[in-house]
Amino acid sequence: MNSGSLAIEIQTSLNGERQAAVDRVAVEEPLEIRLGFSTPDGRATRSIAITMRTPGNDKDLATGFLFTESIVHALDDITSVEVCGSPDPDTGLHNVIRVELAADVEVDLGRLQRHFYTSSSCGVCGKASLEALHVVGLTAIPDNDTYFSARKLAQVPANLRAAQTTFDDTGGLHAAGAFRPDGTLIACMEDVGRHNAVDKLIGRLLAESRLPAHELGIMVSGRASFELMQKSLVAGMPLLAAVGAPSSLAVKLAREFNMTLVGFLRGDGFNIYAGEHRLCA
Amino acid sequence: MNSGSLAIEIQTSLNGERQAAVDRVAVEEPLEIRLGFSTPDGRATRSIAITMRTPGNDKDLATGFLFTESIVHALDDITSVEVCGSPDPDTGLHNVIRVELAADVEVDLGRLQRHFYTSSSCGVCGKASLEALHVVGLTAIPDNDTYFSARKLAQVPANLRAAQTTFDDTGGLHAAGAFRPDGTLIACMEDVGRHNAVDKLIGRLLAESRLPAHELGIMVSGRASFELMQKSLVAGMPLLAAVGAPSSLAVKLAREFNMTLVGFLRGDGFNIYAGEHRLCA
Repeated sequence: MNSGSLAIEIQTSLNGERQAAVDRVAVEEPLEIRLGFSTPDGRATRSIAITMRTPGNDKDLATGFLFTESIVHALDDITSVEVCGSPDPDTGLHNVIRVELAADVEVDLGRLQRHFYTSSSCGVCGKASLEALHVVGLTAIPDNDTYFSARKLAQVPANLRAAQTTFDDTGGLHAAGAFRPDGTLIACMEDVGRHNAVDKLIGRLLAESRLPAHELGIMVSGRASFELMQKSLVAGMPLLAAVGAPSSLAVKLAREFNMTLVGFLRGDGFNIYAGEHRLCA
Repeated sequence: MNSGSLAIEIQTSLNGERQAAVDRVAVEEPLEIRLGFSTPDGRATRSIAITMRTPGNDKDLATGFLFTESIVHALDDITSVEVCGSPDPDTGLHNVIRVELAADVEVDLGRLQRHFYTSSSCGVCGKASLEALHVVGLTAIPDNDTYFSARKLAQVPANLRAAQTTFDDTGGLHAAGAFRPDGTLIACMEDVGRHNAVDKLIGRLLAESRLPAHELGIMVSGRASFELMQKSLVAGMPLLAAVGAPSSLAVKLAREFNMTLVGFLRGDGFNIYAGEHRLCA
């Protein structure tokens, strides 16, 4: 096996006829993210998340998650990222990652449990969700000289698909890619989970000191939800393009934070839900 | 608008030509689930989850979530399910649901935060994830006289699609349906989130006293993950069919708990990843 997929024996059924076959499935295994940080009483360690992920780029996943959840804000906040303990004897996988934070990084673990919501003064609703993003310090993406051409944008799905190594095997993985306005893909990550693919990608951009990525677009293989838009906003990316449809709150977030949101990017056409000023012919 | 979708002004781009248009997007709004329960010191209330959902069948979503997370185990555990407070002035939506549990229901809120994992003696890995399900009392689905015919199974995707009222508007919703072995759909739920669609469906089956649903299959519009299999297992459903691919851990769960797992159910064919003894021609 490669670490992203696994061959298993199955049966196929076609018009009622059954046959034995071998199929490759995308690997899904839990990853625990542990955080080491300073408290008034000395260093502490806390398990902060367990996510079901496809193995591969686990360190990027861990650091990307910490960044998009606004727990770390810069590469300097992190002093080390290491796998923990011995590998699982059956799979050979390390399923625990430990991230050590610099001594001066303050961690509000309570906020992690509360999510963004209790930062907001009013009740739980879409508007409160957007206000809570302001409260944690997120601001609108600035306008600059970055424009994306419709013609180049139409090539990104094919570029992303070509870069997906495991999808071809399994048909079962989401992808997230970062691309330049000329359509060039500079990084692509795969995972059974949409959020994980985006976190891996942003973790990689963080490691390469490319954040905030005001000159890069992000393409996702599925739909555009509030949470994917939030992660892209934290990374400073001005444009998100999805193969599928956006949700109402994804559109509202894009419009409130000056992001460009493209949906149904397929063939030669797409829909522009927000920020059309960044698109040229 | 209907509550599941919202009309917004967009632009379309086709071969570089832009036009103004109106598009319907799936609504995504947060729902907070609050739990009222007994403690040694009297009644307590705790907010236990905020999920981004498409409004509609919110009570089913709340009770289904509590059931599939193994917090409640029977309809009798719940004494009331009510919306809380006043509706959001902008949308008219109630975004808080309060579920009151019967006095004799014990709630282990710590387990909710720890997920299933710390119940398990060994480390974090796929095998531990499966063992943890045994620890919370889940057992293999019993064999009975329920057989699903391949011919009828092939009709379920079309039946599910026909029942999806909001998808046609938006192209942006996941669906989950419960069906009889003859292919008849008895319930269908939609949501921007896959897990929410399944929780809504299982909440509805709970309300109709149909659980454990040993004679029903479940069909999901996307892929089959560990978590969707887990929810179906808790509901006692012997077969899960997905339009897309399963993950490795979904297959392992199905094989360990005697579930039938069908993937790539499209046209006249599908793949059988586990439990082929429940399928006939």
